[in-house]
Amino acid sequence: MEPGGCDMGPAVKAVAAVLPAGGSGERLGGATPKQFCAVQGRPLVSYTVRAMERVSWISDIIVVVSPENIETMKSIIKKYGHQRVTVAEGGITRHRSIFNGLKLFSENEFSNCLLQKPEVVIIHDAVRPFVEEDILRKVVMAAKEYGAAGAIRPLVSTVIASAADGCLDHSLERARYRASEMPQAFLFDVIYQAYQQCTDYDLDYGTECLHLALKYCKTNAKLVEGTADLWKVTYKRDLYAAESIIKDSLSQQICIITDAKEAVVQVGFLLHESLRSQIKDNKYAIEEIQQLVDMLEESNVPLLHPVILISVHLNSSENTSFSIDLEELTRMKKFAREVKRKNILVYGLLIQHKDNLPLQETVNSAAALIMALIKDRNPELIGQLLVA
Amino acid sequence: MEPGGCDMGPAVKAVAAVLPAGGSGERLGGATPKQFCAVQGRPLVSYTVRAMERVSWISDIIVVVSPENIETMKSIIKKYGHQRVTVAEGGITRHRSIFNGLKLFSENEFSNCLLQKPEVVIIHDAVRPFVEEDILRKVVMAAKEYGAAGAIRPLVSTVIASAADGCLDHSLERARYRASEMPQAFLFDVIYQAYQQCTDYDLDYGTECLHLALKYCKTNAKLVEGTADLWKVTYKRDLYAAESIIKDSLSQQICIITDAKEAVVQVGFLLHESLRSQIKDNKYAIEEIQQLVDMLEESNVPLLHPVILISVHLNSSENTSFSIDLEELTRMKKFAREVKRKNILVYGLLIQHKDNLPLQETVNSAAALIMALIKDRNPELIGQLLVA
Repeated sequence: MEPGGCDMGPAVKAVAAVLPAGGSGERLGGATPKQFCAVQGRPLVSYTVRAMERVSWISDIIVVVSPENIETMKSIIKKYGHQRVTVAEGGITRHRSIFNGLKLFSENEFSNCLLQKPEVVIIHDAVRPFVEEDILRKVVMAAKEYGAAGAIRPLVSTVIASAADGCLDHSLERARYRASEMPQAFLFDVIYQAYQQCTDYDLDYGTECLHLALKYCKTNAKLVEGTADLWKVTYKRDLYAAESIIKDSLSQQICIITDAKEAVVQVGFLLHESLRSQIKDNKYAIEEIQQLVDMLEESNVPLLHPVILISVHLNSSENTSFSIDLEELTRMKKFAREVKRKNILVYGLLIQHKDNLPLQETVNSAAALIMALIKDRNPELIGQLLVA
Repeated sequence: MEPGGCDMGPAVKAVAAVLPAGGSGERLGGATPKQFCAVQGRPLVSYTVRAMERVSWISDIIVVVSPENIETMKSIIKKYGHQRVTVAEGGITRHRSIFNGLKLFSENEFSNCLLQKPEVVIIHDAVRPFVEEDILRKVVMAAKEYGAAGAIRPLVSTVIASAADGCLDHSLERARYRASEMPQAFLFDVIYQAYQQCTDYDLDYGTECLHLALKYCKTNAKLVEGTADLWKVTYKRDLYAAESIIKDSLSQQICIITDAKEAVVQVGFLLHESLRSQIKDNKYAIEEIQQLVDMLEESNVPLLHPVILISVHLNSSENTSFSIDLEELTRMKKFAREVKRKNILVYGLLIQHKDNLPLQETVNSAAALIMALIKDRNPELIGQLLVA
């Protein structure tokens, strides 16, 4: 439970996180606020919560949402099995929402609630799902030392000031300035005191927590250089980017289950004679896939990402025509549609092996198809039988 | 040839564009500079050039690339049939590259070259491919009136200044500042004079053309609010976003060629009896697709995007087993691999129609598959036969 416990110097007694998720997402141009937009079928906010909860030394995660989204958020927490998360009701601005989140800890001192007041509190946007433990640790340790800390990034564009007539007044020297990003971290007492003292104007029009800590507690925040993956999902294009990044990260994990002695085989493997004899011959084997689906269900693990099951079959008969049982194909497609509701995508792959074809070529083709299915996770192609 | 010719007030005599494309793309983290990264198989810079050349009143487009990329750029222009484009050799910084591009017009006064000195010159990044004619017209008209103009956007993050000790000095009031984006436009004489007068320090460390116009020509640029699609491809995630946006825009166009009397049919159409009888029965018809491929080749139109050909077949026999000729399938896959080199992606789709199945359901399933193939343009799945 200690971010500095391993190799980071002084330990911090308790760390909590507040994720403001009350925004309306107007810049995204859609009806759904961006934190609730689905990325690979799962709301964006769930990815950010997951990024926080996998950090063992964060004891409590407060997600602050607008009143109309409280039930939605609670059902997300339940569906994806999130732990250590409390939902708080947001205010009409970002600062008011964060303040509401912080109050949960403070009011507990008097009300015997379960939430322990943390020594350091992290504030992080619900729409920055790719935050890593490393930067969280850095801002927490800096907050412990300086009272406040925040991640910064170089400016992508030059910043300019405009005059009243809509013309350029001056441009800022890019090297002197930075973009203020998230996460930020504060000694709880510093940020809570700042919120208690600040004006309604601050609460309604301010955006920057670091600024409040400076103005009301004379705390100059330590600035910590962050990595590019701290970016905020702001526009629709950012949702596309998030989806691609998530697909990329998922594609790197593959497990092949066979009846053969080799338990795990590399994609791109050369089909051994031993393996050949074990792969089922040219039949869609729904029963076997059903077993895997049952196993996944019984394990009761929430499926955070679509799981891909590819049923691989070998046709090594010398017949030039190959007969597909249309009824079985229809049955397979129906089955695939059913398990899709459980976030499992089923595809079929037939590997043709003829003695007059180079085996390696067929295997490469099969590997390429498998990789394409895994990478794309295309729900429209479920139940199809591809041929390598 | 006049941006103001229709409804925009005073006309501008001649407009040219300079696209600096000399950057190394270090923020992208790849070896290939981002302007040359492939998006749907085509270099990003080609999309930006296309966005410029489709604006009829831009007479010349100068792409400035580093010396080692001149041949690459020339081959891109040839391959994608770009018009009115001249390649210039870049300098070691952005400003030096833009200056080199501008010199092509000025030196022509003495050298009898073909490039006419423009009244207004647009400067636009090669890595902002989604620029629209509307904003180009706005900055050109503003440059004609004010001498200089540039697109701006609201800041996404708060901008802060750091003190020497790495702590927060102050944060800027977000409402007073804007991000300076591209395109920008200038009276040619204003920006050329600014470059001629500016110091080596400006050329080596400056980034902002508007700043030079202000400093050396006392020209306060008019700031024009741009739309969100002016964003710059900076990081790898931006390439993902660009690819998704391009796929989205392409998916909206579909043309169905049939033997039937109805020349064009909507996707999601109900398969009429008349149409049913015309769709080829359960055979991959390579010959027909070959005709389409030949037609595309003979037209000599550069294929700016992957073209999708889906060979749709109907199986309405009452046989429950359907026989695929494996040799024909192999032939089809080989054929698909060959035409893929010409940027044509071929897929097969079999529509099963049995009297005991609701027709509308099958048709919906076929339409969903067609849309998925068109949207994804997945090169790994070419030559496959999908079944609806």
